[in-house]
Amino acid sequence: MRTMEFRFSPIGIIHSPFKKVEDIDVGKFANPGGFDDVEGEIEIFREFETGLEDLEGFSHLFAICVFHKSEGYELRTKPFLDDRLRGVFSTRSPHRPNALGLTVLKILERKGRVVRVSGVDMIDGTPILDIKPYTTRDNKSSIRLGWLEGRMRRWRAEERS
Amino acid sequence: MRTMEFRFSPIGIIHSPFKKVEDIDVGKFANPGGFDDVEGEIEIFREFETGLEDLEGFSHLFAICVFHKSEGYELRTKPFLDDRLRGVFSTRSPHRPNALGLTVLKILERKGRVVRVSGVDMIDGTPILDIKPYTTRDNKSSIRLGWLEGRMRRWRAEERS
Repeated sequence: MRTMEFRFSPIGIIHSPFKKVEDIDVGKFANPGGFDDVEGEIEIFREFETGLEDLEGFSHLFAICVFHKSEGYELRTKPFLDDRLRGVFSTRSPHRPNALGLTVLKILERKGRVVRVSGVDMIDGTPILDIKPYTTRDNKSSIRLGWLEGRMRRWRAEERS
Repeated sequence: MRTMEFRFSPIGIIHSPFKKVEDIDVGKFANPGGFDDVEGEIEIFREFETGLEDLEGFSHLFAICVFHKSEGYELRTKPFLDDRLRGVFSTRSPHRPNALGLTVLKILERKGRVVRVSGVDMIDGTPILDIKPYTTRDNKSSIRLGWLEGRMRRWRAEERS
């Protein structure tokens, strides 16, 4: 099983105001709504356009992307919001065994094969592998945040001081 | 870009009470908590175990999986909860251009490289490509459900009648 290999080709790309990784203000990650005002466009390749039908009825979507600029990984990583090493699967670091990204985006509008979204935290040109509607099952209200609990608050406080 | 190909190998597999696709009671999808009591185990391969550190502090995780039994796809698909064709990206159908699955699982316990979870809706042996912690940013409360709105309710009503 561990030697199995699955191959995926992009269904589209994202157009983002962040042209490179360094453009992303990491402080935004310290705030649950930090990226709410960052708009972008998902452009789906022409051959998949039909698959977008009915999507605009949903308020949010999941975008599964490839961290295509990410090279290599460590199993322990220091999240930018923390000062300790953490297991990579307890972080959203782009440097992971499979460089897959996941973001919930708000759907603003769909025009043909272009979906205008907000909540964008990926860089321009990021390849998109899949889009799924966000549903009630994905909305978990009583959540615990592990090491992240308090770190977001503390990070914001340190920023201000 | 559309001819690019990304390759991923599993980091682990899921042990599920559903031994084959037909074992999954699709009626459970009509209820937001339908799979809450379905327990299973994520077994991460030994080489990735370190990456699980700190995960148990979180209440929920995202599992990105491969629908490894899925073959082919159509861009319009009839969801089992609906009687009309819908764009595949507005559904969670396993038959999609990239056969990736996404499930939010509740973390019950971690013992070494095994994470006991509930909310399991995938079949036994499903390959896992990535695990990410579920955070505040993923919790969207005011959501619209498009074609699914009402269908879940109607489906449950029809079931009872």
